[in-house]
Amino acid sequence: MDNEIATSAGNKQTVRSAETGTDILRGLAQLAPSTSLSGLAKHIDMPAAKIHRYLQALMASGFAEQDPQTSHYRLGREALYVGLAALNSVDVYRSGGVALTQLRDMVEETCFLAVWGSEGATVIKVEPAPRSVTVVTQIGSVLPVFRSSTGLVFGAHLPDLEIQYWLDKDASQRPKSQALRRKDIEAQLAQIRTQRMCSVQGLFMPGINAVSAPVFNAFGGITGVLTVVGSVSNFTAELDGPKARCLDLVARKLSADMGFRDTEQKEEPTLPKAAKPGRKRTAS
Amino acid sequence: MDNEIATSAGNKQTVRSAETGTDILRGLAQLAPSTSLSGLAKHIDMPAAKIHRYLQALMASGFAEQDPQTSHYRLGREALYVGLAALNSVDVYRSGGVALTQLRDMVEETCFLAVWGSEGATVIKVEPAPRSVTVVTQIGSVLPVFRSSTGLVFGAHLPDLEIQYWLDKDASQRPKSQALRRKDIEAQLAQIRTQRMCSVQGLFMPGINAVSAPVFNAFGGITGVLTVVGSVSNFTAELDGPKARCLDLVARKLSADMGFRDTEQKEEPTLPKAAKPGRKRTAS
Repeated sequence: MDNEIATSAGNKQTVRSAETGTDILRGLAQLAPSTSLSGLAKHIDMPAAKIHRYLQALMASGFAEQDPQTSHYRLGREALYVGLAALNSVDVYRSGGVALTQLRDMVEETCFLAVWGSEGATVIKVEPAPRSVTVVTQIGSVLPVFRSSTGLVFGAHLPDLEIQYWLDKDASQRPKSQALRRKDIEAQLAQIRTQRMCSVQGLFMPGINAVSAPVFNAFGGITGVLTVVGSVSNFTAELDGPKARCLDLVARKLSADMGFRDTEQKEEPTLPKAAKPGRKRTAS
Repeated sequence: MDNEIATSAGNKQTVRSAETGTDILRGLAQLAPSTSLSGLAKHIDMPAAKIHRYLQALMASGFAEQDPQTSHYRLGREALYVGLAALNSVDVYRSGGVALTQLRDMVEETCFLAVWGSEGATVIKVEPAPRSVTVVTQIGSVLPVFRSSTGLVFGAHLPDLEIQYWLDKDASQRPKSQALRRKDIEAQLAQIRTQRMCSVQGLFMPGINAVSAPVFNAFGGITGVLTVVGSVSNFTAELDGPKARCLDLVARKLSADMGFRDTEQKEEPTLPKAAKPGRKRTAS
């Protein structure tokens, strides 16, 4: 009996130690590319001496590194390796590469793929527009749930309970005058479910328009969101415009590739081979 | 005094616990996309009961997940998030995106960027060729040091001590008849240093040719390798061919962007705006 209690206490300690290790990894990720020990201690609210001890272990296993010149800490090569393995395990990432390139070639705007991560809508793959000045989105970027087209499409498929969580989180980050009303958001999300896509003009960033479409998996759940993003000067982002229609096609095709069976849809989605010029009706 | 010993023993336990946690994360990465508990226990040579305890902690913090249908374990969304942060902290990754797209558009073959990771040359960014059948390389893939053009370019800049380590590792993975001789490898690496690039024909995979060039940083160290890879049917990979010359230009330009000052080079590298048709000399 005593032994059991001792083992149970030891196990709890083990669990706590492993969790502290991952808390520090998450802190290093949030403060990337690098942070001082005191900065990290402040960020994750843990004594510097304790963090220092864990950092030694994380450095020994290659998950953390110390910059010899600044003494700052950063994520190590093993964290990169584990992250790349995690990324390659995301099904929509594996299937989505070719689709994303096709989409970018069709619309000639920056296109990206996001999944729903612990911090919200997280960009995992980007294809930049084929021109020198373009809208840049970084992989790893987290987009706000109700304040970006990508986040809104995910939001349209979140359970009710989570909607309140993200509304509270949004409210805690802004002045009260900018708070979102649950009623308005719910109406917007219902409309997105009906239209399937979401278009925003300058919502996340002034001068930048975006349109997003969901990717569904074999179980009917949302597994990713494809987004086309461009400057207001050459991308109007209308849902019935040619670029949004390309996005819709590619997202439906990718969903079908993921095993999704669309009951509303009669035909297998096919991509257009090349843009055909509109034929004008001539009076005979 | 007793207290100090107790604390020191406690700290060692802490360090060991954190290291066990990262060992399990690494195991999950190596067995990605998912593994059974017994498969993981066998792979990292640790009792299943112990691993199970740590997995509970890793799941609590979002670094691991259990598939409800198969009971198999896999990396969680937090591992993905930490990995994306690590990836975005790699300088050459941040600067290399546009260069890689430009290169792909110039050579119209699959191009990728690799860094030197704990497991060897690790692919961190891929731009697929703009056609439906193409050579596919996945990010996270580890390429063999002396048996791929990417690995050989890194090898050409490894310290002598490491050469022996990777030779021993290569020997341990193959029958004795296929062992590489140090003398041959050293001659090959010296040649790569002189030519700056490395070209291989069907070395890593039959029917697939590749050519690789180093990217240097401000301190003169190799910080990445750019590779063009294609099927033998339309990519001959000669070092003086047009595609290799494009690769050389883009790699030099990217090195300059990283702060590298090439003492052998007289002019700032510039990319050609567009391919000019060769002008034929006509007899007058």
